[in-house]
Amino acid sequence: MRPSGRALDALREIQITRHFTKHAEGSVLIAFGDTQVLCTASVEEKVPPFLRGKNQGWLTAEYSMLPRATRERCSRESTQGRVGGRTHEIQRLIGRALRSVINLEALGDRTIWIDCDVLQADGGTRTASITGAFVAMADALMVLKQRGLIRQSPLRDFLAAVSVGIVNGQPVLDLDYAEDSKAEVDMNVVMTGSGKYIEVQGTAEGQAFSHDELLAMTELARQGIETLIAKQRTALGMT
Amino acid sequence: MRPSGRALDALREIQITRHFTKHAEGSVLIAFGDTQVLCTASVEEKVPPFLRGKNQGWLTAEYSMLPRATRERCSRESTQGRVGGRTHEIQRLIGRALRSVINLEALGDRTIWIDCDVLQADGGTRTASITGAFVAMADALMVLKQRGLIRQSPLRDFLAAVSVGIVNGQPVLDLDYAEDSKAEVDMNVVMTGSGKYIEVQGTAEGQAFSHDELLAMTELARQGIETLIAKQRTALGMT
Amino acid sequence: MRPSGRALDALREIQITRHFTKHAEGSVLIAFGDTQVLCTASVEEKVPPFLRGKNQGWLTAEYSMLPRATRERCSRESTQGRVGGRTHEIQRLIGRALRSVINLEALGDRTIWIDCDVLQADGGTRTASITGAFVAMADALMVLKQRGLIRQSPLRDFLAAVSVGIVNGQPVLDLDYAEDSKAEVDMNVVMTGSGKYIEVQGTAEGQAFSHDELLAMTELARQGIETLIAKQRTALGMT
Amino acid sequence: MRPSGRALDALREIQITRHFTKHAEGSVLIAFGDTQVLCTASVEEKVPPFLRGKNQGWLTAEYSMLPRATRERCSRESTQGRVGGRTHEIQRLIGRALRSVINLEALGDRTIWIDCDVLQADGGTRTASITGAFVAMADALMVLKQRGLIRQSPLRDFLAAVSVGIVNGQPVLDLDYAEDSKAEVDMNVVMTGSGKYIEVQGTAEGQAFSHDELLAMTELARQGIETLIAKQRTALGMT
Amino acid sequence: MRPSGRALDALREIQITRHFTKHAEGSVLIAFGDTQVLCTASVEEKVPPFLRGKNQGWLTAEYSMLPRATRERCSRESTQGRVGGRTHEIQRLIGRALRSVINLEALGDRTIWIDCDVLQADGGTRTASITGAFVAMADALMVLKQRGLIRQSPLRDFLAAVSVGIVNGQPVLDLDYAEDSKAEVDMNVVMTGSGKYIEVQGTAEGQAFSHDELLAMTELARQGIETLIAKQRTALGMT
Amino acid sequence: MRPSGRALDALREIQITRHFTKHAEGSVLIAFGDTQVLCTASVEEKVPPFLRGKNQGWLTAEYSMLPRATRERCSRESTQGRVGGRTHEIQRLIGRALRSVINLEALGDRTIWIDCDVLQADGGTRTASITGAFVAMADALMVLKQRGLIRQSPLRDFLAAVSVGIVNGQPVLDLDYAEDSKAEVDMNVVMTGSGKYIEVQGTAEGQAFSHDELLAMTELARQGIETLIAKQRTALGMT
Repeated sequence: MRPSGRALDALREIQITRHFTKHAEGSVLIAFGDTQVLCTASVEEKVPPFLRGKNQGWLTAEYSMLPRATRERCSRESTQGRVGGRTHEIQRLIGRALRSVINLEALGDRTIWIDCDVLQADGGTRTASITGAFVAMADALMVLKQRGLIRQSPLRDFLAAVSVGIVNGQPVLDLDYAEDSKAEVDMNVVMTGSGKYIEVQGTAEGQAFSHDELLAMTELARQGIETLIAKQRTALGMT
Repeated sequence: MRPSGRALDALREIQITRHFTKHAEGSVLIAFGDTQVLCTASVEEKVPPFLRGKNQGWLTAEYSMLPRATRERCSRESTQGRVGGRTHEIQRLIGRALRSVINLEALGDRTIWIDCDVLQADGGTRTASITGAFVAMADALMVLKQRGLIRQSPLRDFLAAVSVGIVNGQPVLDLDYAEDSKAEVDMNVVMTGSGKYIEVQGTAEGQAFSHDELLAMTELARQGIETLIAKQRTALGMT
Repeated sequence: MRPSGRALDALREIQITRHFTKHAEGSVLIAFGDTQVLCTASVEEKVPPFLRGKNQGWLTAEYSMLPRATRERCSRESTQGRVGGRTHEIQRLIGRALRSVINLEALGDRTIWIDCDVLQADGGTRTASITGAFVAMADALMVLKQRGLIRQSPLRDFLAAVSVGIVNGQPVLDLDYAEDSKAEVDMNVVMTGSGKYIEVQGTAEGQAFSHDELLAMTELARQGIETLIAKQRTALGMT
Repeated sequence: MRPSGRALDALREIQITRHFTKHAEGSVLIAFGDTQVLCTASVEEKVPPFLRGKNQGWLTAEYSMLPRATRERCSRESTQGRVGGRTHEIQRLIGRALRSVINLEALGDRTIWIDCDVLQADGGTRTASITGAFVAMADALMVLKQRGLIRQSPLRDFLAAVSVGIVNGQPVLDLDYAEDSKAEVDMNVVMTGSGKYIEVQGTAEGQAFSHDELLAMTELARQGIETLIAKQRTALGMT
Repeated sequence: MRPSGRALDALREIQITRHFTKHAEGSVLIAFGDTQVLCTASVEEKVPPFLRGKNQGWLTAEYSMLPRATRERCSRESTQGRVGGRTHEIQRLIGRALRSVINLEALGDRTIWIDCDVLQADGGTRTASITGAFVAMADALMVLKQRGLIRQSPLRDFLAAVSVGIVNGQPVLDLDYAEDSKAEVDMNVVMTGSGKYIEVQGTAEGQAFSHDELLAMTELARQGIETLIAKQRTALGMT
Repeated sequence: MRPSGRALDALREIQITRHFTKHAEGSVLIAFGDTQVLCTASVEEKVPPFLRGKNQGWLTAEYSMLPRATRERCSRESTQGRVGGRTHEIQRLIGRALRSVINLEALGDRTIWIDCDVLQADGGTRTASITGAFVAMADALMVLKQRGLIRQSPLRDFLAAVSVGIVNGQPVLDLDYAEDSKAEVDMNVVMTGSGKYIEVQGTAEGQAFSHDELLAMTELARQGIETLIAKQRTALGMT
């Protein structure tokens, strides 16, 4: 029995709220249960130095938690004067994942900035960030098209992410904090609408895992991501 | 005529939502029109080094804007590796103001951390932060009392803040971004429930101001703060 | 009775020494009693990035205390690797105040750097800095005119600053450290030669202040600044 | 045909040189072809703050490249004043992987510092680091036992790592730089001597991968790691 | 002929002003011609961590230039967020030199902080700093003795420093900026009252120097330092 | 008798290995006994900002120790977020020394980056760095000539460095760590192939030194450097 009472293969309640704030080209509040992340997509009409003159765009992501998104207040990275290793890892992952489903040439000489700010954390903030940021990015690309700045949407596929793991010896889908903190294995999977992997990151937390467990986890992830992408489609009115 | 159509002495629509997130002892979303700030109050059971062994508590405040709270995305202070001058100024102001209405001895050997994170900015973020943070702080103090950690509330008075200014030669209350960006004078006033000043900060933006203008602005501020404190009382059920 | 024996409305002894060091275009040592600040004005023949191509100049200020300007040695901000909040606040104030009395268009595509370095501190270093830096700036502008780089002086008005406060329940002018450290209210006022406000910053230090006290303090400040501007005129030979 | 002429399932030439430098408790130079990493294990007789009084040890890893380990000189992170995201990610991976095969309680109140410094880079530096650092760690643990500081070795299993990927549509083992820079998929696998996974990190570089490709890569990795662990055993004389 | 008209072996005019500021235990303004350095010595009643419990004191030095001490304004190290290489080198030299003539055991568990702040620079700031800081340190040690904190002065010898160099092929004493900027060789010598070397630092600036030139420079330095120490004795009333 | 059994004027065993790594234009492993430094010279086809448009090249040096090059592990400067004073001092010395023997005009608009990374430390790392970096620089210049990028070698002379000191009252050559840690005087000398000084840096470590001792040390250094330059010639095949 899971602490939340969910079935082993059940996602938490998912909510996707578009246009949550007014300035950003895309602004989405996504909730995976009590995990709430504000994902914005901002368009900047220039590219980083390494891409100048190459006729292609870029997408870059930043991730942060509000200090009291967590049970114990954690100190701000701005106050510490540096961005920590975990943050670096997550924002690199978000950026890499989203870039994999857009055509950077079709984007033109501009950058999309993705900002994922965790308002409330209860496990799975990086996968919620990717899933919500995809919707914010899709909104920003639509704005670009409406403004006549691009002809065709650079979007090549849908994309969502979910966490899976081994808890008490059993493969489970979409871990909340209570499960995450005692999981034997923690795995994050990012997948496209066409069912292919963009990222598979499995980590043994204290106990190594077998090949069979790997397969059980990837299967759970596949099912979860299928559901998440259906919810993205509904939210975007693209069913 | 003001850009928003408001009367010279009219506040924007004020909304105070308590318990906006679940982990913090106090968590308030405050809206002054389109300006939205998430204010949390967190209790830490220790004091900073300079107060150790002095039998009194402390309150410290941090302020930040989400990157796309603004019209143009602004870069994160964590990424820049340092907290800027404007942020320093604002968070020092918030902390000083809130400390002025609590009895730090009665708080005991603990620190209250105030975090004001601007989700959406449309002028007046620092005064909205102070007004919202007061409510979050009051909630956190109630939690401390309910948990039996303190006997009496250290709260000595109510506290709110508002901006006033001279725009097009006329004194106005509660400037939004459209007014703020062209104001001749910008003044922030922090006042207690008993109608005394905690802070008066008036700055000429391009044009010096007369003593009569100072008096007109402080009078507008007094009225605005009276209304804000009434709204705080209602939100806290302390009418 | 004030610790220094001064009347409630008496300034400390003010000394303004021009040409204190030889390299800077303007170099002034100003003393408000035992508070001594070296203020230099340096001309740089370029403007910051945000002003390029706008045909106007800029003025920027930096403030620092020598480590042993104070009773207890304080550590250098260079060694700490960051400029603290108080310093940020003061140097932003100095810059804003001085910019308010010069015509930046008439200055041309150049920057005036104001450096205020406190050699000895006894209260009121920020107001002494503004008052002394005004003279250094005036000297630098005269140098620019003598060198034929500008036709007309960009100076629009005189400017000086003084602190006032409530100590032992009484409004007093120009607080020294002994008063400052026990003041109930601390207020800094920056005013032009034509008697208008540029900045009013009043802060309750432990006790809120009434509207009548605000008026008493601004009146004391007005008188003090009148005297200070007379001394600036004498020092500059512009009587 | 691979650029190096190797078969799809062939490792590069592996060399493990123990006692490469004299001060460290464990010091190993590992070569995966032209990739050369100096891995040292140092014992410190204290634990980080979060473990004090918990009767267990810790292991932490740092990773760096010499500036000219690469084709183009890359600037030092010490000069830049911060450790980059890629470095953070790699050193967190190395530390996590090695901690998974030692008994931290049996280590006692001490920390093992792993330092992986890349002298020459030709792809696969993180997997070479893990494989070499394991041997350095084993040496340091033997030193602890010889000095009588621990009774039993805290070593629970062997551990090695290898990269696999999809290049030109084909799964390959142990990518060098020429392959790495054009791979469609890049995956790093860390596995124990008992054939279980510690870490699986697969990333699509421009092209998503199917479940069958995932399986083909994990199988190649299993074979490669088996060979690497045999070489570790030989190097340590533990066959 | 030297630019200043001085003889090859002539020092600039030397002035040593004690008690220049009032808070520091030792406060000396030293002038070597137009080079002016404010040297303070501050006593702190604790030692750095590496000396705790060792029954000996410490002396540490910091050096800085005011931004407009120089011909061109140089930016503050606090603003840059780091102390530069040249500053590090100079403050390490000052500290090492002064420590060599005091008995750290006799100083007790306290630290002397030396601060050398260059108000105006015209060459030779590091040697002026050492020579002035010696007097400030002697004053601080006398204060310690007067306060009964130490019984005997920890001072073991006098100490002064001077620059020498090769300019236009000729050895010269005490270079000013005009000479320094075109010198072939630049050498700083620190010597005790008993005529022994504490530090000899000679650097070829564009042209290597012979052994004979080394000897000519050390002889000039010896003479200059003898004169400087006589002036220190007079200033301290220790003739 | 010296701890190593060497005669007072004997160098340690010197080994110079060229082409130690494959990417750098010059790559030399130099050993002075147990002190081992990897010195690389990298060519960058641009110059620093202060030299743009001046038709001359530049050479800059960086120095670092691997964390466990030393008896006790020392923490990385990248992790600390800043380069320490000792490192600054050493890398400035290496750069200055090498620049003194090349014709920067003949180098053209390019920069040579020297990287000295200490793999194992046993005293004298800075002098070993200079001696090894000279050979790496010579190799890089030969590469430039072979590639037809320069016509004539910018090399003007040979250059090597050695440490001397006073240990137990006796002048000794090439101190190892055991001697260095108890030396009364420590001196580093950098000299050209023509027997002239580039740098003389002598420091009293606890005991001042006489003029006769200075002479004895410079004579030892002269002999040592002559031998080192002979070894450089042999290594480079330039005898």
